[in-house]
Amino acid sequence: MKSKMMTVAETVDWLAANDGFLILTHRRPDGDAVGSAGALAQGLREYGKAAYVLYNPDTTPRYERFINDYIAPDGYVPEHIITVDTAAVDLFPKNGAEYIESVSLCIDHHPSNANYADLICLDGSCASCGEIIFEILLSLNGKISAKSAERLYVALTTDTGCFSYANTTANTLRIASLVVEAGAPQKELNRMLFRTKTRSRIKIEGMIFSGLEFYFDGAVAISVITRNMLAETEATEDDIDDIAAIPGAVKDVLVGITIRELTSTRDCKVSVRTGPLVNSNDICTRFNGGGHAMAAGFSLDESVSEIKEKLLRILPDHIPKT
Amino acid sequence: MKSKMMTVAETVDWLAANDGFLILTHRRPDGDAVGSAGALAQGLREYGKAAYVLYNPDTTPRYERFINDYIAPDGYVPEHIITVDTAAVDLFPKNGAEYIESVSLCIDHHPSNANYADLICLDGSCASCGEIIFEILLSLNGKISAKSAERLYVALTTDTGCFSYANTTANTLRIASLVVEAGAPQKELNRMLFRTKTRSRIKIEGMIFSGLEFYFDGAVAISVITRNMLAETEATEDDIDDIAAIPGAVKDVLVGITIRELTSTRDCKVSVRTGPLVNSNDICTRFNGGGHAMAAGFSLDESVSEIKEKLLRILPDHIPKT
Repeated sequence: MKSKMMTVAETVDWLAANDGFLILTHRRPDGDAVGSAGALAQGLREYGKAAYVLYNPDTTPRYERFINDYIAPDGYVPEHIITVDTAAVDLFPKNGAEYIESVSLCIDHHPSNANYADLICLDGSCASCGEIIFEILLSLNGKISAKSAERLYVALTTDTGCFSYANTTANTLRIASLVVEAGAPQKELNRMLFRTKTRSRIKIEGMIFSGLEFYFDGAVAISVITRNMLAETEATEDDIDDIAAIPGAVKDVLVGITIRELTSTRDCKVSVRTGPLVNSNDICTRFNGGGHAMAAGFSLDESVSEIKEKLLRILPDHIPKT
Repeated sequence: MKSKMMTVAETVDWLAANDGFLILTHRRPDGDAVGSAGALAQGLREYGKAAYVLYNPDTTPRYERFINDYIAPDGYVPEHIITVDTAAVDLFPKNGAEYIESVSLCIDHHPSNANYADLICLDGSCASCGEIIFEILLSLNGKISAKSAERLYVALTTDTGCFSYANTTANTLRIASLVVEAGAPQKELNRMLFRTKTRSRIKIEGMIFSGLEFYFDGAVAISVITRNMLAETEATEDDIDDIAAIPGAVKDVLVGITIRELTSTRDCKVSVRTGPLVNSNDICTRFNGGGHAMAAGFSLDESVSEIKEKLLRILPDHIPKT
């Protein structure tokens, strides 16, 4: 199926001409998904439309408050389904399966979008879907309300690590400036989203930091996360979000590897993170995995020490000679 | 001494009318000091002026590259001394002492500025001095060069924790957007400044995270940094920058305390960080220290365990009853 591409202006016209919206996000919604959905529902209501968000059972407690005011009541019959930040239908939450064939509009920033909707407003140069929602609401309402601004700030910052990731652009910062001016409670949100760690997160980071192993003159760092470590620290999936980034963030490390035990001590997921000098995908394809040049992974039904041994044997092929 | 206050426009006129500048920063210059000085020297040279920066022996290796091109050669005789980001003369570097009485212009963002210069361009609402330098250079040259933009990005981001601290404003983000557009190598700078940790930093954070102690139902977190920990991790002052923020960044902690051994195990510095519910200064004045409402400190010639005991005795007076 091929979607009809729409500009922001065309999307605004379509939204103004229609009504009865139900907004969907992807499975395990992140801040961009929740913030984009909440802001869009809020902005459409300000324009006088009926707009609701499909309850997503995966929403974590930290993000619920940004979406609670818009959850569709039982029995709401939408005229149009809109998805935000959702690149493909296999990312739909389970309770959204009934809408897979009938999405009117998709608003997204993933260049890989699978074109499953009738209409699509896509900008792959945006760091977050929230940046596109911002342009749509500004054009629709002539201004951004404080409630929308709060949700857009969550969208912008969570997808960019508070503007520190490589996807951040001048446009991200420009929009951030405007949503703060529009009343986003930036200090409180920054504190909650970026300057607070749970006790479990602190404990597991302590274990990981203390246990980091370095090889090949510090070019390779390996982090191990065992089932025991997770049990001992009572860490949830929320607590170990983005934890595979740790070994690669050590100065002078070219290859950062995280080996994590999943369902047993012989069921491991390996995440590889590299800078521009080493190709993560090349390393992972040797173990029948894959991914991107700077982030890839693979799974093996072997123990941590066996996997480590195999990795250390092949890594010299991938590290530049000094 | 009372300085004459100048607007940005008046400052630009004064810079255009004069020449032979020597720029000073404060002792132990941070990114805002180095970035502001480098950007100002670069921008003044673009306008055709002679502009140099006084070599500051405290400059750490990570910041040297932003200032190396502008270091005043031996024998340079300046006509005018300019200070940036320097609130008082007791913050001058040792080799700047000869200029204490003869500063023509001070550009600063500290509301507490001691008015030691003939002229002052001060904006206490700015998160960084770099924001004021940006306005000055934009007005002086009509644009911001890539070299100035790089240095201004360092100034803006280091004083705001990459836009995550409470001092960040909509204006900070607006200027950041413009300096990225002007060519600041944001990805590379973010990686170096915010997404990389030294091995020593990782090791000492691991020890601190693992050793954090919680009291009063998690309302108080205490971190201890011993001389042994610093020796074992080979951590420098650079490595333990901002480390007192750790205990207060744990979820639900109202009082975060760091006890650090200095010259001996009976010479300790205590840092207290609180949220809006507890007053740090009130706690520290009980030990003859002081500071601000959310960040204060004191020193005691006692052991870590003695200090901990004293703190735990008085803290119930300061924690709100639940």
